[in-house]
Amino acid sequence: MLNLTGWALLMLPMSKQGPGGASWIEALFTAVSAACVTGLTVVDTALYWTPFGQVVILLLIQLGGLGVMVFASLIGIAVVKRLSLGSRLTTAQEAHATGIGGLRKLIVSILRIALVVEGTVAVILWLRFWLGRGEDPLHALWLGVFHAVSSYNNAGFALFSDNLMGFVDDPWILLPLAGATIVGGLGFPVIMQVLKHAPNPRRFSMHTWLVLVGTVALLTLGTVAIAVLEWANPASLGAHPTGVRILEAFFHSVQTRTSGFNALDIGTFHPETLLVMDVLMFIGAGPAGTAGGIKITTFGVLAAIIIAEVRGDPTVTLFGKRLSRAVHREAITIALLSVGLCFVATLAIMHLTDVDHDRVLFEVISAFGTVGLSTGITASIGTPSQLILIVLMFIGRVGPITVATTLALRPRRLAFELPKERPIIG
Amino acid sequence: MLNLTGWALLMLPMSKQGPGGASWIEALFTAVSAACVTGLTVVDTALYWTPFGQVVILLLIQLGGLGVMVFASLIGIAVVKRLSLGSRLTTAQEAHATGIGGLRKLIVSILRIALVVEGTVAVILWLRFWLGRGEDPLHALWLGVFHAVSSYNNAGFALFSDNLMGFVDDPWILLPLAGATIVGGLGFPVIMQVLKHAPNPRRFSMHTWLVLVGTVALLTLGTVAIAVLEWANPASLGAHPTGVRILEAFFHSVQTRTSGFNALDIGTFHPETLLVMDVLMFIGAGPAGTAGGIKITTFGVLAAIIIAEVRGDPTVTLFGKRLSRAVHREAITIALLSVGLCFVATLAIMHLTDVDHDRVLFEVISAFGTVGLSTGITASIGTPSQLILIVLMFIGRVGPITVATTLALRPRRLAFELPKERPIIG
Ligand SMILES: [K+]
Ligand SMILES: [K+]
Repeated sequence: MLNLTGWALLMLPMSKQGPGGASWIEALFTAVSAACVTGLTVVDTALYWTPFGQVVILLLIQLGGLGVMVFASLIGIAVVKRLSLGSRLTTAQEAHATGIGGLRKLIVSILRIALVVEGTVAVILWLRFWLGRGEDPLHALWLGVFHAVSSYNNAGFALFSDNLMGFVDDPWILLPLAGATIVGGLGFPVIMQVLKHAPNPRRFSMHTWLVLVGTVALLTLGTVAIAVLEWANPASLGAHPTGVRILEAFFHSVQTRTSGFNALDIGTFHPETLLVMDVLMFIGAGPAGTAGGIKITTFGVLAAIIIAEVRGDPTVTLFGKRLSRAVHREAITIALLSVGLCFVATLAIMHLTDVDHDRVLFEVISAFGTVGLSTGITASIGTPSQLILIVLMFIGRVGPITVATTLALRPRRLAFELPKERPIIG
Repeated sequence: MLNLTGWALLMLPMSKQGPGGASWIEALFTAVSAACVTGLTVVDTALYWTPFGQVVILLLIQLGGLGVMVFASLIGIAVVKRLSLGSRLTTAQEAHATGIGGLRKLIVSILRIALVVEGTVAVILWLRFWLGRGEDPLHALWLGVFHAVSSYNNAGFALFSDNLMGFVDDPWILLPLAGATIVGGLGFPVIMQVLKHAPNPRRFSMHTWLVLVGTVALLTLGTVAIAVLEWANPASLGAHPTGVRILEAFFHSVQTRTSGFNALDIGTFHPETLLVMDVLMFIGAGPAGTAGGIKITTFGVLAAIIIAEVRGDPTVTLFGKRLSRAVHREAITIALLSVGLCFVATLAIMHLTDVDHDRVLFEVISAFGTVGLSTGITASIGTPSQLILIVLMFIGRVGPITVATTLALRPRRLAFELPKERPIIG
């Protein structure tokens, strides 16, 4: 729906600069990229679209981002309620994971948080663009609002032709954007629980701990990896003083969860850095937020299973709680179906184009994870490959949620027990 | 042990053609590659080693291949016995999975099968090399024996500088080698059960069905994928008539499970073909055989879990039997640890060299899966990267078996039950 409306609006001649309207693929790609808060672009957002077109993009981002947050939170409640029927003992704990009542209250909470975060970031950016970068106050306000919304919703659209490369050494621009990205990526259940129980973290649910610890761990890992691998690359970090190098390593680590702004040319990164970023983008951030990927919790469940196996624990535990066994199979299913999808898409685009494997893989994972980072090939890979990316962005945005919900909510038939057997593995 | 003995023997001046001995890294790499039945080479097996050196390689292959077969079969029995204590009902079925008694009987069975298969293939190859290719009878016999042993043990070492590229259109050479590779890759438990119960396949265990169906499926998939992707490539299949194209597509599909002979220059394949072969090599063939990879059964268990989840089945079933729940977690652990290992190794070699990502990944998976196919970079990537490949070959050969056994045989502590909870995933 949102995609189609956006497509139609962007097709209007008044959306595009100069004579004529946008081509169908340019408008479709941009609409899907905005509504799925991805941020990949086939045209220059700053020069190609009119202010009207840019407002359309902004609304698509805001509605797309908050829409999924509401939808995913609702579903989270439904899953918790449904499962609680079968295990009354755990209802109390699990209700904490969402901690909300009706739909209206939910939407109000989500809007209030968005308003506070986006408002704060918009004001900081406004002041910086106006007083620090010499923009006139009204244009600076527009820049502040657009980029605040784009970052909180993990969209990664920017109103500059070079994304944020003009602000490579400006922490007053980059750090607020990074902050909004991180908060949006935590997801609504985590934000609510932190606001509610911050003085008493022992009341946090397993879900909240998993997302918080996972976010810190992945941010640290990404910062260290980018810093180490790119430190001496004269085309990326190497061109800047030490302080800026650390700022940039941190900023681009944040962008892999999954906002997708860039303040350096990602195309100049070493292939091994791209590979590390592939993994980070594929994992993404927290569920029921504005981020994409298979989600930190899915990855965390798999990691917990492996650790439990290696240690020989009889059950999988996470933060002092036993991990529900049904989640094991759901996490494997989501992770492996996603791997399969990215594999097939990579194969198809490699077959359709002559682009290097590592760049195709990066673009595919960036689309699937609704990240929007690019080595610069998006515009030139041709319509068939762009259509593949459109499908990936869409599936990446709604697929994992849908699959997880379907798996969790479906009635389980109680089958007659078959004789048990095990193959030899390994 | 075998690796060290082989290393010492290959260091002897009498192993190497011309004056002086082999360098330590050449001898070590070759010894590990032979004992782990991988087939990656840093020197030309045909020209660099003396006949004595080649006999050492042959013995390393034979002992390495059969040694692991014995070891893995023993372990398979131990796992079945151990697990049977807890579930007496299933003992009868599971005993079928191995169908053998004592260690002596086991070794005799394994040797007898090896002798029959290798003998048959050696005779066919001998006649072909002698009568069809004009070699003198004695040299033809040596060629027949060496390549029969190398193929049954999934080693992929050849006594020609261009591996088997001289026989690109010779089904009398390629098909017997492919046959030996497939049989060796089924693994001892499957071979035994097929020999015993062939007239009555309903008595086959889940393990046997999984390996047989998986082998046919992966061989078909590989043949079709290679044929489709390389059909028009003038440097590979495109250079040959239709019949040879199909023969070559099939032959190289077989080589990914995980023998690693090549009759075409793998370096000329399209990157997307390499990517498909990466997946096939990573999966490998059956357990307790001469092949590498995470094994068809590990992959099959994961696939069965996903199918059960998507269909909403309460338990995972395979070929009319319920899949033991402990195997789920073991399969995830083996698959994901292997992915992680290959990822880290790829990253390290990319950091150490300037080779393209797709070639490094191919080489890494080829080493981990003890396949031995190469795009030709093995000899030129330098000693540090070669040491990484050595470690990969060794871990790839013994790692999955060891991990699987440790996981399956370890005593499980019965912990007090913690409160259950589930994070939101997807
Ligand atoms: K994004
Ligand atoms: K091999």
